[in-house]
Amino acid sequence: MTRYGTLYGIGVGPGDPDLITLKAVKTLQKVDVVLAAASPKNDGSLALSIAGPHLRPDAEIIRLNFPMTRDQAVLDKAWRENADTVAAILDAGKSAAFLTLGDPLTYSTFGYLLRTLGQLAETPVEVIPGITSYQAAAAFTGRVLVESGESLAVVSGVGTEEELTRVLESAQSAVILKAYKNMPTIRRVLERLGLSDSCVFVTRLGLEGEEVITGLENVPDKPSYFSLVLLRKKA
Amino acid sequence: MTRYGTLYGIGVGPGDPDLITLKAVKTLQKVDVVLAAASPKNDGSLALSIAGPHLRPDAEIIRLNFPMTRDQAVLDKAWRENADTVAAILDAGKSAAFLTLGDPLTYSTFGYLLRTLGQLAETPVEVIPGITSYQAAAAFTGRVLVESGESLAVVSGVGTEEELTRVLESAQSAVILKAYKNMPTIRRVLERLGLSDSCVFVTRLGLEGEEVITGLENVPDKPSYFSLVLLRKKA
Repeated sequence: MTRYGTLYGIGVGPGDPDLITLKAVKTLQKVDVVLAAASPKNDGSLALSIAGPHLRPDAEIIRLNFPMTRDQAVLDKAWRENADTVAAILDAGKSAAFLTLGDPLTYSTFGYLLRTLGQLAETPVEVIPGITSYQAAAAFTGRVLVESGESLAVVSGVGTEEELTRVLESAQSAVILKAYKNMPTIRRVLERLGLSDSCVFVTRLGLEGEEVITGLENVPDKPSYFSLVLLRKKA
Repeated sequence: MTRYGTLYGIGVGPGDPDLITLKAVKTLQKVDVVLAAASPKNDGSLALSIAGPHLRPDAEIIRLNFPMTRDQAVLDKAWRENADTVAAILDAGKSAAFLTLGDPLTYSTFGYLLRTLGQLAETPVEVIPGITSYQAAAAFTGRVLVESGESLAVVSGVGTEEELTRVLESAQSAVILKAYKNMPTIRRVLERLGLSDSCVFVTRLGLEGEEVITGLENVPDKPSYFSLVLLRKKA
């Protein structure tokens, strides 16, 4: 008879320690092990600092390595190793919480972990959603994300110019996440669509260096990793 | 000298009382007045029941009338009356929390209230985001909403067949909210796009009558108001 521990995928919210849910807090208070990504961008550290005050004093903290590379062999190896680490914890009957900044099912490494684990065993998994960065940015700036019959596109800013154009053309409102890499492309697409003056750029919300800029004209070409753009055609 | 109270737009989450944020709880604990929509669909009542345990014993509860009609004159009149009610509370130096199921800036009546109030005075407003129904549905079913370079479309299911098709064609992943009205249309669009078998229909999550159905074949033509569809082309 095997007794598995439960794996929790916990969204700790966008950065403000109070934007975590009661459910996440109650779960963090009881888990044996806490798992956070050890990424060079440091979002794992931020997630840990939000979760920290809610953890049991004897909770074990493990950093998992999710390399920032496009080399599929390196990625596959890292995910397999991480899944093995997690499986060993759960096999020992311990519960574990994998932390995600924002939401565990919205542009999170949790999906990769789930998939790799799914090939291993009948792991009991529970996902606890979290407030996303774009909801926090909309709240901070007092801008409606989407209303009545409109549609909202949530887009990664790292895609190609064509993809970005196609998605933004079809939606009435949009959020461009990861707006740190291709800002010149994003600027060009929004200018062509006549949206570059009315949109809002939000960077490092709730962190050192927080800034809100209306329009993209004065946005640097290489902003912080924690940057996004909100736009709405009706606004 | 006028002293205005602050208006809080509070997202109380999708229904599970533990999916409310610490920030919402702390704010509810201090406000003088709580405002909830008095809608025939009863989401105001559900929001109130989630907020209830966190309120001051002497907090005043006011139901605002947001009529479910397309008659613009009736709507305008109701919004003006609601804005007047709220303005009078804030003018008296009292703080007020307008409750929204889910998130206050995602398909919420809070946007209408903000706009009508914006024409009145320099109202101090603070928005506290909430977990949306589609995040809760994704978490419950363990389905990734969006990953790496994909885009996510959040769509209202009450639109036309053409609108729905256009948006779903351009995104890699989608959520169709308000899937209670036009289910035959939604089914037809998803069948045509080859997505009607792999999608998931989620209704009344966390409520009496909760159900998850894979594919749309066995979904009733007129499901509950609290219904949505999750789909992902890669899945």
